[in-house]
Amino acid sequence: MSRPDAKRVADSFTTMSELVMPNDTNPQDNLMGGNMLRWMDICCAICAGKHCARPVVTASVDNVAFQSAIRNGEVITLEASVTRAFTTSIEVYVEVFAATMQGTHPRRTHHAYFTFVALDKDNGSPTPVPELLPLTEIEEQRHAAALRRRELRLVLAGRMKPADARHLQELFSA
Amino acid sequence: MSRPDAKRVADSFTTMSELVMPNDTNPQDNLMGGNMLRWMDICCAICAGKHCARPVVTASVDNVAFQSAIRNGEVITLEASVTRAFTTSIEVYVEVFAATMQGTHPRRTHHAYFTFVALDKDNGSPTPVPELLPLTEIEEQRHAAALRRRELRLVLAGRMKPADARHLQELFSA
Amino acid sequence: MSRPDAKRVADSFTTMSELVMPNDTNPQDNLMGGNMLRWMDICCAICAGKHCARPVVTASVDNVAFQSAIRNGEVITLEASVTRAFTTSIEVYVEVFAATMQGTHPRRTHHAYFTFVALDKDNGSPTPVPELLPLTEIEEQRHAAALRRRELRLVLAGRMKPADARHLQELFSA
Amino acid sequence: MSRPDAKRVADSFTTMSELVMPNDTNPQDNLMGGNMLRWMDICCAICAGKHCARPVVTASVDNVAFQSAIRNGEVITLEASVTRAFTTSIEVYVEVFAATMQGTHPRRTHHAYFTFVALDKDNGSPTPVPELLPLTEIEEQRHAAALRRRELRLVLAGRMKPADARHLQELFSA
Amino acid sequence: MSRPDAKRVADSFTTMSELVMPNDTNPQDNLMGGNMLRWMDICCAICAGKHCARPVVTASVDNVAFQSAIRNGEVITLEASVTRAFTTSIEVYVEVFAATMQGTHPRRTHHAYFTFVALDKDNGSPTPVPELLPLTEIEEQRHAAALRRRELRLVLAGRMKPADARHLQELFSA
Amino acid sequence: MSRPDAKRVADSFTTMSELVMPNDTNPQDNLMGGNMLRWMDICCAICAGKHCARPVVTASVDNVAFQSAIRNGEVITLEASVTRAFTTSIEVYVEVFAATMQGTHPRRTHHAYFTFVALDKDNGSPTPVPELLPLTEIEEQRHAAALRRRELRLVLAGRMKPADARHLQELFSA
Repeated sequence: MSRPDAKRVADSFTTMSELVMPNDTNPQDNLMGGNMLRWMDICCAICAGKHCARPVVTASVDNVAFQSAIRNGEVITLEASVTRAFTTSIEVYVEVFAATMQGTHPRRTHHAYFTFVALDKDNGSPTPVPELLPLTEIEEQRHAAALRRRELRLVLAGRMKPADARHLQELFSA
Repeated sequence: MSRPDAKRVADSFTTMSELVMPNDTNPQDNLMGGNMLRWMDICCAICAGKHCARPVVTASVDNVAFQSAIRNGEVITLEASVTRAFTTSIEVYVEVFAATMQGTHPRRTHHAYFTFVALDKDNGSPTPVPELLPLTEIEEQRHAAALRRRELRLVLAGRMKPADARHLQELFSA
Repeated sequence: MSRPDAKRVADSFTTMSELVMPNDTNPQDNLMGGNMLRWMDICCAICAGKHCARPVVTASVDNVAFQSAIRNGEVITLEASVTRAFTTSIEVYVEVFAATMQGTHPRRTHHAYFTFVALDKDNGSPTPVPELLPLTEIEEQRHAAALRRRELRLVLAGRMKPADARHLQELFSA
Repeated sequence: MSRPDAKRVADSFTTMSELVMPNDTNPQDNLMGGNMLRWMDICCAICAGKHCARPVVTASVDNVAFQSAIRNGEVITLEASVTRAFTTSIEVYVEVFAATMQGTHPRRTHHAYFTFVALDKDNGSPTPVPELLPLTEIEEQRHAAALRRRELRLVLAGRMKPADARHLQELFSA
Repeated sequence: MSRPDAKRVADSFTTMSELVMPNDTNPQDNLMGGNMLRWMDICCAICAGKHCARPVVTASVDNVAFQSAIRNGEVITLEASVTRAFTTSIEVYVEVFAATMQGTHPRRTHHAYFTFVALDKDNGSPTPVPELLPLTEIEEQRHAAALRRRELRLVLAGRMKPADARHLQELFSA
Repeated sequence: MSRPDAKRVADSFTTMSELVMPNDTNPQDNLMGGNMLRWMDICCAICAGKHCARPVVTASVDNVAFQSAIRNGEVITLEASVTRAFTTSIEVYVEVFAATMQGTHPRRTHHAYFTFVALDKDNGSPTPVPELLPLTEIEEQRHAAALRRRELRLVLAGRMKPADARHLQELFSA
């Protein structure tokens, strides 16, 4: 199957806002980590769907750190953009910002990388995705670093031997 | 109480995306009108809260027309911006766009005007809001037309006599 | 297609109660405007469906004013009745009442007009609806005033010129 | 504490409508039994709260039989009325009716008895409730039979010996 | 249709945990009775489905007593096991335990019997279920007592005359 | 502050079942990745709360791979157990199993590591947690490997230099 035309990051950039409601919080009145993960997944899936122009399914989520608590009644904003396209999968980067409903106390609270596989509409098997054209400096940085993150995912999933992870070995060698 | 500093439209512009889920739809598998109204209200309330920098409550919704059906699994995007500030209330304009999750079949589906009243944090009574500075041509058009919409709201609520609605009379006179 | 038999207001009168839960409220612990709009839409849609005896979709919502705040834990009751049938659409009037769960502090809080279009089950296109037979004095008043509201909807949607809105011109002429 | 004034059945009669949504159904597209029980409990609790004019908590649910399946997209209507007041508790009878959204295929689908205890607002302990004045013949029948149902509840909860259940013994003796 | 092979209680034992969230509670911040009934129904339906290995629908719920209040933020655990199989239906016993999220204040809060009917996948009519093999002493006790509970359900549903309820008559005779 | 008494893995083992409902699925009728992450977080948080006997907050989630699609109407079972306690945080391992509601097609679908920080009830700052006593062979393996996963989290969060990650260096050296 021939590969679809390449796309830019801006072609699939996706932003999403949510108001934190009582049922999204834990007994300390803070947003539960699991709800944040759920919104990240929806935002990244919409972004991935736009880039691939076909159905996508979540393949993996990289290590996510939770630093700043988000309170009941605050507004969160998610921004997702594609960092790199592989053969039948793409990596999406998502950043999360929080603020009060009145816009005060703005801050960046989370960031993570999600990977999606594109599926053929007819037979449901993995299908080629459009390449990504990084344009700005930060887009190029993320595009390059995606190779290292991919190696780490393969090692953690037991599908690549650490000894074969060339980019990671550079990182961990003195 | 002195009036807070004026703000620009861009200072409170708010965008929000939602994925239409099965429970949001009617038995024909289309988004129910009431769920659209609920999302519009949340998006406009966040926008109004940013402009006013204090708690706000919905005061009224203008006539909303539903033209294009939105399907289960589609993504909608709402964009809300302040059109005019009155003494203790502001008018917010919201436009809704829909597309498939893959970004195809994009279209504008709804637009509406919501009005909010700003409340004092301590005693809960209406409190002055920042003025709006319209900058672009479309911002100035909406700012001017807000007076006519306000007259119509007051007439419909029985708080202004039709004979006193100066802008509306111009409109309906041959 | 021949028009179905006329019906009375009582044939489709619909009432609905809801208990306001924490997720329905804003950070001030009051029912959010958008949730009220969603319940109004469901109640009116059930009423419209009974009158038309076929699938219906929301076509428009008239100006809605929010006067009295409703608290978390209160019970709201909605009452919807058809006011007039046009060729393929009908107008429904809904009143909302609130009270505490113990029945104290009863009050009328909202009222609005929703318009629905009836759809043919097979091809999904607009289809004739039964006429409405107004019986009581208040039913006749609402039936007559529906023409003026319809003109206003058409003018606001840009589908009728103000100069052609005969009933509205009478209203706004000194 | 003196007992509050007696009330009639009509003083607390409560009706509630719900539209069956996809998440309320099982994989066969029928309303799940548990959701029906949840709505019955809310409707009866509102009814009990009105009669007692104080907070109430569910104390027990009698045997409930599920006869007729309810489909996704159908409308159900619940009607709850008090049958008898004991010292600090009341019994509420609820009937459920279903129909399509267009009002066709109307039928009675369920009925059940819920018992509630009224609580003092300050210390949360059981508190006297108003007596019930049965007026119609059916109200009197249900009021009388409530004693037998109460005995059955006490026997099933192990709080009354079968040998002391006078009304039940009559029923089961040849 | 021949009867499927018998199964043990352990073959379908089902346990389920839920975290009580704000929307599950009443204005006194306690879990609403109706939500407990909904979770019981889901847990028992999963258990019944495992035993029968075909679709099941709730046929009835026996008298349920609510003794101990459960607070917002507490964790509940449900344990369901089959007590007896009849021709095309089975009885399931469910016990509910509650504790704080930190595991303190553990207690048994509810227990109930649900009955399910197994359905043929093709024509949706009742279909034979596997017999139950009780092994432990408590399993045998529940298996034997199921006959008495079944008589009570039939009498309460008006499908058996009290005079024919042999097991119940023994219970209520001095 | 002195450290609380050590605990065994079995003391906080937590299992949780969920029925996949329509709103949990994507347009292909499969469970959305984000909902799985949300349930994993709740299950692990309950497990962590039991071990620590104090409030906990999610600190991080390790790389999660999604292999097997889960269908609408299937039942998933999550099993969470503590793998190692650090000073004020603990690592929890969660495995997910899926099957149809009738118990057929059982399979392991996901596994992941979540980290939680225990908070002091009064001042909300991190507080010492009980040590974990691994007993079985698999418990000891997970306990030992937790050190390597911790190094990886610190490196990925930029809080440890790769050159200082002793266990990882061993892994990546030929």
